[in-house]
Amino acid sequence: MAITAFKMYQTTKTNAMLLLRHCQGVTRVGLLKTQRLLNSVATPSVTGCVGSLCARWGSSHGGQESGSYKRSHVPNWRHALAGLLAGTGAVLAYGLHSQAERAATTMVQPIDPPTSMPIFTQDDVTKHRSIEEGVWVTYKGSVYDITEFVSMHPGGDKILLAAGGALEPFWALYAVHSQEHVLEILSEYKVGELSAEDRRKQQTVKSSDPYSTDPVRHPALHVNSLKPFNAEPPAEILSDNYITPSAIFFKRNHLPVPQVDPKAYQLHVEGLPGAEPLVLSLEELKTRFPKHTVTATLQCAGNRRSEMNKVKPVKGLNWGIAAISNATWSGAKLKDVLLAAGYRPELAQQACHVQFEGLDRDATGTTYGASIPLHKAVSDEGDVLLAYEMNGEDLPADHGYPVRVVVPGTVGARNVKWLGKIIVSEEESSSHWQQNDYKGFSPATDWDTVDFKSAPAIQELPIQSAITQPAEGATLDRRAEEVTVKGYAWSGGGREVVRVDVSLDGGQTWKVAQLQGGEKPQPGRAWAWKLWELTAPLPPATQELEIVCKAVDNSYNMQPDTVAPIWNLRGVLSNAWHRVKVTIREDEEE
Amino acid sequence: MAITAFKMYQTTKTNAMLLLRHCQGVTRVGLLKTQRLLNSVATPSVTGCVGSLCARWGSSHGGQESGSYKRSHVPNWRHALAGLLAGTGAVLAYGLHSQAERAATTMVQPIDPPTSMPIFTQDDVTKHRSIEEGVWVTYKGSVYDITEFVSMHPGGDKILLAAGGALEPFWALYAVHSQEHVLEILSEYKVGELSAEDRRKQQTVKSSDPYSTDPVRHPALHVNSLKPFNAEPPAEILSDNYITPSAIFFKRNHLPVPQVDPKAYQLHVEGLPGAEPLVLSLEELKTRFPKHTVTATLQCAGNRRSEMNKVKPVKGLNWGIAAISNATWSGAKLKDVLLAAGYRPELAQQACHVQFEGLDRDATGTTYGASIPLHKAVSDEGDVLLAYEMNGEDLPADHGYPVRVVVPGTVGARNVKWLGKIIVSEEESSSHWQQNDYKGFSPATDWDTVDFKSAPAIQELPIQSAITQPAEGATLDRRAEEVTVKGYAWSGGGREVVRVDVSLDGGQTWKVAQLQGGEKPQPGRAWAWKLWELTAPLPPATQELEIVCKAVDNSYNMQPDTVAPIWNLRGVLSNAWHRVKVTIREDEEE
Repeated sequence: MAITAFKMYQTTKTNAMLLLRHCQGVTRVGLLKTQRLLNSVATPSVTGCVGSLCARWGSSHGGQESGSYKRSHVPNWRHALAGLLAGTGAVLAYGLHSQAERAATTMVQPIDPPTSMPIFTQDDVTKHRSIEEGVWVTYKGSVYDITEFVSMHPGGDKILLAAGGALEPFWALYAVHSQEHVLEILSEYKVGELSAEDRRKQQTVKSSDPYSTDPVRHPALHVNSLKPFNAEPPAEILSDNYITPSAIFFKRNHLPVPQVDPKAYQLHVEGLPGAEPLVLSLEELKTRFPKHTVTATLQCAGNRRSEMNKVKPVKGLNWGIAAISNATWSGAKLKDVLLAAGYRPELAQQACHVQFEGLDRDATGTTYGASIPLHKAVSDEGDVLLAYEMNGEDLPADHGYPVRVVVPGTVGARNVKWLGKIIVSEEESSSHWQQNDYKGFSPATDWDTVDFKSAPAIQELPIQSAITQPAEGATLDRRAEEVTVKGYAWSGGGREVVRVDVSLDGGQTWKVAQLQGGEKPQPGRAWAWKLWELTAPLPPATQELEIVCKAVDNSYNMQPDTVAPIWNLRGVLSNAWHRVKVTIREDEEE
Repeated sequence: MAITAFKMYQTTKTNAMLLLRHCQGVTRVGLLKTQRLLNSVATPSVTGCVGSLCARWGSSHGGQESGSYKRSHVPNWRHALAGLLAGTGAVLAYGLHSQAERAATTMVQPIDPPTSMPIFTQDDVTKHRSIEEGVWVTYKGSVYDITEFVSMHPGGDKILLAAGGALEPFWALYAVHSQEHVLEILSEYKVGELSAEDRRKQQTVKSSDPYSTDPVRHPALHVNSLKPFNAEPPAEILSDNYITPSAIFFKRNHLPVPQVDPKAYQLHVEGLPGAEPLVLSLEELKTRFPKHTVTATLQCAGNRRSEMNKVKPVKGLNWGIAAISNATWSGAKLKDVLLAAGYRPELAQQACHVQFEGLDRDATGTTYGASIPLHKAVSDEGDVLLAYEMNGEDLPADHGYPVRVVVPGTVGARNVKWLGKIIVSEEESSSHWQQNDYKGFSPATDWDTVDFKSAPAIQELPIQSAITQPAEGATLDRRAEEVTVKGYAWSGGGREVVRVDVSLDGGQTWKVAQLQGGEKPQPGRAWAWKLWELTAPLPPATQELEIVCKAVDNSYNMQPDTVAPIWNLRGVLSNAWHRVKVTIREDEEE
């Protein structure tokens, strides 16, 4: 089905190529490594490669095909596949330039300049995401077939997360790759060059589909919805780096990504009594105000919604545990801009809210909007930014280029992207997302009885934690004698996580995890998560562990034990203890 | 046993008196109402009155006499009884003058001036706390025997809470008493006058016992420890008034109550670089700085510790659910005083803490001490007060006369009473109570493994709620068809309680309670609790209800489901769902 969308880029002709074309359109060549290609092509599974690709995606999305899950699930994996097919070269344009460059400066021998090797499209690369079909990756414009290297990779299967896409965001996660011999190994597997067209492609596409100008995304993302684009990184890599690379930072869009010309960009600031509206260009925002940098975790209100969905169906994207990520953000302080626009402290008696309008809009012209309390916006310690950089680069398109609001400690939905207008007001934003969404309710409240006016808009989020490793259903080897559990923990409102308790027996007994990463925050300004880790002996006499985590912040708020009593019809604020079941494989004499 | 401590005050001689003296020391007279006295004296139970007094106290303290509970329990009820015997007349000196006066202004007919009626001591009054022994109360210096009125009281048995003590704090709770006909009814039951000595007694007592100068307290308090004095109000009246009268506000002393001469009082402010220490008299504190009033709930870190004790014994006072109360506090803003002492915002880069030292000291001269973060102390919105008034009067001796710190949203232990010194510092207070107490730990941590340095001092407290009515073990009448559940809810850090869920079936299904009382707080400054109430139909086909409550604050923090996973060796931060079991008495045809 999705196969009909494949676009063919025929670049060279070899016997291997002909074989591959027979395989319903998979284009793959390798003049220098024909024998390796032929070896892999000759496996029985290759003739059914497209079928197995579909099957694999089906199973990686859970394989559950009944009830409410099915309704959102079936379109999602179609979207996911289509998203993959859209190619991933653009991560080079949006992703981790500075980090890749920092890594590159430590490398003695740069990649060779383009040669007479074959040219591949991103589509060609994207099709190679398994041992059966070959594992292709790109790095700095070159294409590598690393199929044979996978079994030799010191980091194990994790290398497959990069299959079909760019290595850069993963190498940024795992600094061990910034060594000369790694590049030497990689160079052995080079099979061609990425087409120049693919590096420019996503900037010039025009179509009647409002989403046609959305940027391309990294294929490692787990896509929840393609239009608008919503995706989370694989949970198992989330805790491997304190700073999440922008390319795999979770994406939560409500509307098409707007195309903003940075030269024409204007930020409007209104609503300040006795003052003219202030209009700032991007250049003025960057030069008239001091640049501040804040490391802050953003979390979607729906993070871990899938756990609520299992209690009783809820409305919303079926997020796993990774609708949360951590980045550095740089920009002007909102307080400084409001002062320049005429804000005076006396105004706090009249106005209570600061509204934000995005430049993203629906078919009727309605823009995304949200608001935050004025006292947060103008607090010296609130650290609210009008950010134009993420992880040291211009904001990526998916994260609000050229300017977004970053409201540390506050639910993602108030961190308005593609910011167009700021309005100081006596009222909250009148937007759907402020008034009739992103609010918490009792488990007793259903869609017949809900009164959205009765609950406050979510601002600060409660204490949260989750286990990223091992994964649900993983098998541990008894001979390892111990298990290492990893995860993240974070709390809203600048409250610092001070402890994470981990249980291997479903919550009967607990151990205290080691907290990692991040400098000691200033009091009340702990905006970034803590990663944590616990290594403990495998309990004897059991073949199954129920691993549980729960975090505590410095106001000693704790996570609720179970999901059902905090269930709510929108599936937000899902912060019960996180539970993962794994099995222990016992020793077997050989 | 405690009977040996009875002090006899023989004031008149009548036949009734002789009978009463025979009853091991209970002194009771009533020239005008001899017949009523003789009636009650003639009941068989009177000859065993002391025994029943003891038995009643034993059962009111739970009656559980095994294990660790017994160890703290037995001394406690002895102390409780001794506390009662110490008399309660002094509530007139410390309690609710202004409220009683406000109530009095609405009364047309004042109580008659002293006549030739008998004079009683507070001890005499204190001994009359039951129907069997008679129910005596005092009001504005007169003594009333209201035994016969109890069954006619429109408010039911609650009147017995005032037995043996003063009516004023209860009438302050229940404004319905501020009517002329109530005083007319009361006057019928007058049996004598309270001795003048008792009104002055507690001010002049001298002894080698450092606690001998502690003030006398209201007998309705449930005493956890007499030396130092720690007591909580009866839970069932806690939610009857938004403002807790000072006399029944929970008391949590760590040391003897210091005797402070307001004329000689000095407050020292130190630690500000480049500034001389500031010394303020009480008069200067009151006149040099604007007076601010804040309504704030204080809660002991150990509130609800008894529930943790049931999971596994913990160290600490065995508080019920009422180590929490709400009052208005007036005084100078700490920020204003620090500014006057030389504080400048730049200092925030160097100093991080504001330490407080009390004037209460142990035998070695060590004073009580604690500290709070500087950013809380100097925040415009932090509302930290150097309070000299509670509920519109001078601070009572038990609450820090003449000056205490009130740190809204912060654990009671930081609200240092009898304040002697303020020190701005790079370090937290070095006191035992800051360093080695009032900290939270994992349930895995025991006294062999605890490292007090590993946990932060408790400052803001987490979300909390409890059911005050019905009481554990209460019996509901099926014919009433519905049940009304009442309680309180509060969260630290100025986070407003936005919802309370109540379950009648142990947490399987929930209903949303009505929140009551208090003006809408400013954002981030919700310092006072919310009282709540739910009336729901009695479920059919069940004879037992497990009533549960859980609250949510505006950061959507929620209470944990169960106690065991938050158990900690000091028994602090006990904020799991509160559970109360009651039975339903079915209709019986007569």
